[in-house]
Amino acid sequence: MVQKPRGTRDFTPNLMRRRLAFENLLENKALAHGFKRVQTPIFESLDLFTAKSGAGVVKQLYAFQDKSERNLTLRPELTAPVMRMISEEMRSEPKPLRLSYFGQCFRYEESKKGRYREFFQYGVELIGATGPLAEAEVISLAIDMLDSCGLTNWEVRIGHVGILNDVLTGLGLSSEGQPESPIVSSMRLLDKGDWDGLKELFSTHGVDSSAIDNLRSLSELDGGAETLSSAREILSHMNIGTESIDELSQLLKVLHHLAPKAPSLKVNLCVARGLDYYTGMVFEVDVPELGGESQVLGGGSYKLLHLFGMEELDPSCGFGLGFDRVLLALESQAEKAGRSEVVPGETASPSTLVLPFRIESTNVLSLVKELRGAGHNVELDLRGKNIGKSLDWASKNGFTSVVIIGPQDLENSQCSVKNLISGDQNTVSLDVESISRII
Amino acid sequence: MVQKPRGTRDFTPNLMRRRLAFENLLENKALAHGFKRVQTPIFESLDLFTAKSGAGVVKQLYAFQDKSERNLTLRPELTAPVMRMISEEMRSEPKPLRLSYFGQCFRYEESKKGRYREFFQYGVELIGATGPLAEAEVISLAIDMLDSCGLTNWEVRIGHVGILNDVLTGLGLSSEGQPESPIVSSMRLLDKGDWDGLKELFSTHGVDSSAIDNLRSLSELDGGAETLSSAREILSHMNIGTESIDELSQLLKVLHHLAPKAPSLKVNLCVARGLDYYTGMVFEVDVPELGGESQVLGGGSYKLLHLFGMEELDPSCGFGLGFDRVLLALESQAEKAGRSEVVPGETASPSTLVLPFRIESTNVLSLVKELRGAGHNVELDLRGKNIGKSLDWASKNGFTSVVIIGPQDLENSQCSVKNLISGDQNTVSLDVESISRII
Repeated sequence: MVQKPRGTRDFTPNLMRRRLAFENLLENKALAHGFKRVQTPIFESLDLFTAKSGAGVVKQLYAFQDKSERNLTLRPELTAPVMRMISEEMRSEPKPLRLSYFGQCFRYEESKKGRYREFFQYGVELIGATGPLAEAEVISLAIDMLDSCGLTNWEVRIGHVGILNDVLTGLGLSSEGQPESPIVSSMRLLDKGDWDGLKELFSTHGVDSSAIDNLRSLSELDGGAETLSSAREILSHMNIGTESIDELSQLLKVLHHLAPKAPSLKVNLCVARGLDYYTGMVFEVDVPELGGESQVLGGGSYKLLHLFGMEELDPSCGFGLGFDRVLLALESQAEKAGRSEVVPGETASPSTLVLPFRIESTNVLSLVKELRGAGHNVELDLRGKNIGKSLDWASKNGFTSVVIIGPQDLENSQCSVKNLISGDQNTVSLDVESISRII
Repeated sequence: MVQKPRGTRDFTPNLMRRRLAFENLLENKALAHGFKRVQTPIFESLDLFTAKSGAGVVKQLYAFQDKSERNLTLRPELTAPVMRMISEEMRSEPKPLRLSYFGQCFRYEESKKGRYREFFQYGVELIGATGPLAEAEVISLAIDMLDSCGLTNWEVRIGHVGILNDVLTGLGLSSEGQPESPIVSSMRLLDKGDWDGLKELFSTHGVDSSAIDNLRSLSELDGGAETLSSAREILSHMNIGTESIDELSQLLKVLHHLAPKAPSLKVNLCVARGLDYYTGMVFEVDVPELGGESQVLGGGSYKLLHLFGMEELDPSCGFGLGFDRVLLALESQAEKAGRSEVVPGETASPSTLVLPFRIESTNVLSLVKELRGAGHNVELDLRGKNIGKSLDWASKNGFTSVVIIGPQDLENSQCSVKNLISGDQNTVSLDVESISRII
């Protein structure tokens, strides 16, 4: 028997109702902040992702050739496709652009809980505006989204790639080099906390190892906006400019107004996001109870549009939200709290089964049609079982009411309406208005 | 510069708003008829489609191997994936199931207007119920969907594969044979109107060529339900049973009650849908003005679940709606009628630009946050241009109002609200309630 491919999922009606409610909630928040949905193809030219992330990215891609031997790949993420789209379709649109997107992405890796080969990403990009106000607009949307879906126990970590970059440049390290510059290598080691590796790299490039202590102090800073003054002291001590710290400080001030309800907000100067194209502010959201795969959202300011000859739009700012991961966290939190509703708005709207009993179904078809026309969700019974079995089936299938019409009812132009939530049963006139009032 | 792959499309915000409105409209109609959304992966095992449609289907597929040399393919349609899903996830769910789906499908063929390599399909399947009532429920949903999106000048053609099947079996042709049975070959020739080909096939299989005239008369029947009595006469004359005609006749009667507003509804006994798995009623919707690619919807009763060991659920009934084709038709009809709204509900909801002018933006951030919290769609201005340029930009970007706050305003706790639709400008108190009332 053919089965679904490894690492992919099917979504049955109950799961799908939850996912649609979540998508809807994110969409409404995006619109409230001015971000408008776009959509790009499921597959792209392979070049698009190797240009952005280097050739090493190919081993995690679903890459394939089409019948004309073009190199294509299922998209692993959505930022590069959106940049390509801007270059092809939106060059002449007035900037800034606030764009949102949602869809499947694909990554060829070992599948485990919270990591799927087909996964869903929601995200936004703010193109053609930069600075603390623009960044705060993006972060406040992320916060508003997670807050409104009812997520609890989450942390935001904010950093600025420019700070480490200034320090490492100040120490004499280069941003050039293949396959990876000494600065990028250092950031990677710092992100992992690999101090021995960093010491070795510094000595290879003739950097005084005393800088290690300062970097360690920077990385150990832990707390809110107040930690920035300690960071400023360390940088002054090293004779490094503090422009990036000033930017971050201004961002935090603005964010405080735009998202005062923000949860635990931490400054972490070693958040590097593991991606070379971030150039300024970077931020991540974690839900610690998810364990090893606890990051549910990540973003920052990046330079990518120069790859498409639109240098004037760099840097931009955006984030990607792990749709599946946030749902996993919400499901686990709802279970712990004993809540049955996982995502606000996921509850099904009322629905009615119309049950002709020992009469020709043709007698109730106009009623079915008119109830639907009046805005009700209605199924015509197709099973033709007895009333007990039909009511049982209707309960199991989530109907909220059943309209029963038997031979006597038909004669008297009436019907029985059973409310499956309260258990009440009433006899009402066999017309749309009377039935509409109680279903 | 990397471009989008051939035959794929990007959707910019205006196009996407239309597509989301259309999806939403279809979704609400599906729910009104009891059909609940499911979702399956973008790629499937290649076997799934060769089992359903034969090996010949591969040349039109985006088939590829993953890194473990599994044969996968981007899905070319959604019925087979939904059947697979039912066999894996919904075996024990109480039947009948009413399922709907929406998503990208992929077909490797020459791309031209109305035919894309990545295209979108919306569809439904009614599983575990059969007969005229079930079929009418499915067709009436199709009609309700197309009617409610405002489509005009469309035709429904309804046929029944069983009628031709009974005739061809009665003539002594076999339903067995590789790669294609004589019955399937005959239906294909009839669908094309290739009478010479049919004559040749009949003589190969020793069928009396006089049957050709009767078949030609059957195929020439053109009209509504009344044509079925002529068909009945032809079959009686050939000594063929009329059970399939009786079924179709009953279906038309039921449909008349469930979808009285149906447009031009034609009976066509040679609609064979070109697919071997249809076994009973088949129907198609055409919009003739689309020209060569005029079919926008197609479906019928089919047997597929036996492929998954669920013979008891055959036959089922469903349809696929060509999302892109219907949109093409709606766009062309709106243009001809001089209407700017193509899909009901596509108009953007009101949106407001908050424009701090010669004051620190930090002064208006709480206002921005609170307006969003009150349910408004709000952007903070990030361009910092003068008022004239900003109003111009806001108009071009579809904003419906602009809230302007200058130094004097801030001092007097007031602001100017410009309505970009009417052109009116008012000074109101600088609080959420006052502003909410007029944006």
